[in-house]
Amino acid sequence: MDAEIISVGTEIVLGQIVNTNAPFLARRLGTLNIEAQRQLTVPDQPDLLEKVIRAAWQRSKLVFVCGGLGPTIDDITLQGVASALKTTTQLDRDHWSWIKQSFKQRQKAMMPENIQQAKYLAGGQPLANPVGLALGSWYEYSGHRLVVLPGPPREFMAMVDQEVMPRLRSLVDTTKQIVSRTLNFFGRPESQLMDEIASVTKNLNRVVITSYVQPDAIQVRLTVHDQSVTKAKQLLDHAQQAIISKESEYYFGRGDDCSLAATVVHLLKERGLKITAAESLTGGMFQSTICSIPGASNVFDGGFVTYAASAKESLLGIDQRLIEQYGVVSAQTAAQMAERSRQRMGVDVGIGFTGVAGPDTLEGQPAGTVWVGLALPGQTTITRQLHLGAYVGRQEIRRQSVQYGLQMIYQALRK
Amino acid sequence: MDAEIISVGTEIVLGQIVNTNAPFLARRLGTLNIEAQRQLTVPDQPDLLEKVIRAAWQRSKLVFVCGGLGPTIDDITLQGVASALKTTTQLDRDHWSWIKQSFKQRQKAMMPENIQQAKYLAGGQPLANPVGLALGSWYEYSGHRLVVLPGPPREFMAMVDQEVMPRLRSLVDTTKQIVSRTLNFFGRPESQLMDEIASVTKNLNRVVITSYVQPDAIQVRLTVHDQSVTKAKQLLDHAQQAIISKESEYYFGRGDDCSLAATVVHLLKERGLKITAAESLTGGMFQSTICSIPGASNVFDGGFVTYAASAKESLLGIDQRLIEQYGVVSAQTAAQMAERSRQRMGVDVGIGFTGVAGPDTLEGQPAGTVWVGLALPGQTTITRQLHLGAYVGRQEIRRQSVQYGLQMIYQALRK
Repeated sequence: MDAEIISVGTEIVLGQIVNTNAPFLARRLGTLNIEAQRQLTVPDQPDLLEKVIRAAWQRSKLVFVCGGLGPTIDDITLQGVASALKTTTQLDRDHWSWIKQSFKQRQKAMMPENIQQAKYLAGGQPLANPVGLALGSWYEYSGHRLVVLPGPPREFMAMVDQEVMPRLRSLVDTTKQIVSRTLNFFGRPESQLMDEIASVTKNLNRVVITSYVQPDAIQVRLTVHDQSVTKAKQLLDHAQQAIISKESEYYFGRGDDCSLAATVVHLLKERGLKITAAESLTGGMFQSTICSIPGASNVFDGGFVTYAASAKESLLGIDQRLIEQYGVVSAQTAAQMAERSRQRMGVDVGIGFTGVAGPDTLEGQPAGTVWVGLALPGQTTITRQLHLGAYVGRQEIRRQSVQYGLQMIYQALRK
Repeated sequence: MDAEIISVGTEIVLGQIVNTNAPFLARRLGTLNIEAQRQLTVPDQPDLLEKVIRAAWQRSKLVFVCGGLGPTIDDITLQGVASALKTTTQLDRDHWSWIKQSFKQRQKAMMPENIQQAKYLAGGQPLANPVGLALGSWYEYSGHRLVVLPGPPREFMAMVDQEVMPRLRSLVDTTKQIVSRTLNFFGRPESQLMDEIASVTKNLNRVVITSYVQPDAIQVRLTVHDQSVTKAKQLLDHAQQAIISKESEYYFGRGDDCSLAATVVHLLKERGLKITAAESLTGGMFQSTICSIPGASNVFDGGFVTYAASAKESLLGIDQRLIEQYGVVSAQTAAQMAERSRQRMGVDVGIGFTGVAGPDTLEGQPAGTVWVGLALPGQTTITRQLHLGAYVGRQEIRRQSVQYGLQMIYQALRK
């Protein structure tokens, strides 16, 4: 099926923000064998918008119009689409009540213009916004379909996944689908991982293998085209087995939404273990990442941020002389942080992070030098040194440290 | 001047890579008052490419065609442009010698196809590639101009800055530029903020005011077109003053890269104050946000993550009976967290976060109910209740709590 994506927004046209919505949607459409061959960006300008929508609507069976559903004067998308399709907009009274209610609950003043966000294309269906205010629209006429989606990426992605994809799945030939599966890896350079995967999947040429670098994972997608679902599943199982047995050290789970943090929280819960942490360069990011997972309270009570050496002494009781002897960025300090935090919180697992986030060096060590300590019940404390690229920058060094820490826990616990 | 940008590449169309070239070019064009109103992405497909180039060439005075100048079979851009313009390609013999020489020097095998990268549009001029192999093209005919640029971002950016911008500057009147300025706000719904700003800038109609919702700020951009730089600056100063005096409670700084966290860290440093925190629902995110700012060690030694009630008792010494009496999500608990953390760390400022991140309710309170306590030297502890929309989700409730906490500190300290 041919599709077009029209992104609306002066801020995108001016290059003030980068359009990540269109590529997200394109990847999702790809799983259904739908290619959006034309992807256009235009400013918040009614005349131009109407013109390009009319052209796309005539040309293509499936048109997406993205962005410009806010309550302000430059949010002209819904009206523009309605004019182009020669229809009007319609108020969803239930949603409008909900918007009013939600402003009230948040004790914020609502503007009369917010009513725009409760409107959708007359003759079409409203699309629910799982994480925001503005409704989307789904409109069909004479075999053509037009979908209106909100601009903020969180809202856009949620609406695509929860409202749009189920509707599209019912339109495509599901007997000859694309069947795909995502495997998640961490801690291996993409080119090396893909070379090694290629070497073990040489004979599996009906499985197309692609990789996507995500912030906290390399996602490897296995795709089978034009096969029955049963056959496709067999092929995927086969490929998955070959890949995981080669890359088991770096593999952590299946699925687009799989994260190391969620995997670790679930594994800890399964084992009935509680965890704590003492964080220096990560400054609370490890604990915050654990708490981002619903149900974290089953495995985490609390812990320590010990950014300065003085805090390592006052909060954890680490002897200042140990730090002076080995340095704050050392296996010994990381191990002590892990062990002391575990003792002080009276829990099973303790992890310690110490290192150089940069931009400056510390104790003569370059930015990106990190030690992680991991104390587990009835086991010698493990330490690991990371050499992260200084060029990736302070935030990324901290983020990667957290991910490597999670990986250490995962590798230790799954045994 | 009207411009169009056509990006060529199946990998962009499929969403496998995000197009950062088009926004880069758009920002550069913006400095010359050129707006690329249509920005289109199409796959490496000769028919479609020719069709869209012909349409753009007829419609606009300035067309950019970006990507697809490599030596492989799917690099079809130059040939596609030549066909659309009814011209041919021409070999730059000097550049072809240089390519051959450069492969020899790097001891790499050259492919015969590399000759494609030494070609440009016949009747136009070659554009030098300062950091890569493929030439660009600059083509003019009857007042229309078409520019062909390479896809790899490093090469693209270098060619835009070194080859394209000087040529464009000679075409436009540089005495009349666009001058703009960004003001950052937090804690006000966009619609309300913009209504209030509109009310105080009614008489400043030469300043165009637009808003962009960022994750941690609403950015308001003031832009002046077609004025001398001196006059533009006066107009911007005038508008800025009117806006900030109306919205001082929510304003926190100027510039595209300004963040509340950096503003707070710098303000604490300026005042010679140190801060700590006790975090429940935010689980370390506040402290991690402080540590994300280079130089955080001047104002932050460490602190506490007290996710469970038991940790509030064991790490901070908060009386279990206080929590039982008022609830863990209460002004009293938040105030105690702020005060106790400050005492235990022996620093000037303490902040406490407690609330319901969701998805479940807690103590009968809905997700999004948050209390923040702020203990400052020689002052009664401040508490503030937040009512964040439950619908935004767990992570966003935690993120917004951190930002409101930063805002409380900023408002208290700047007095």
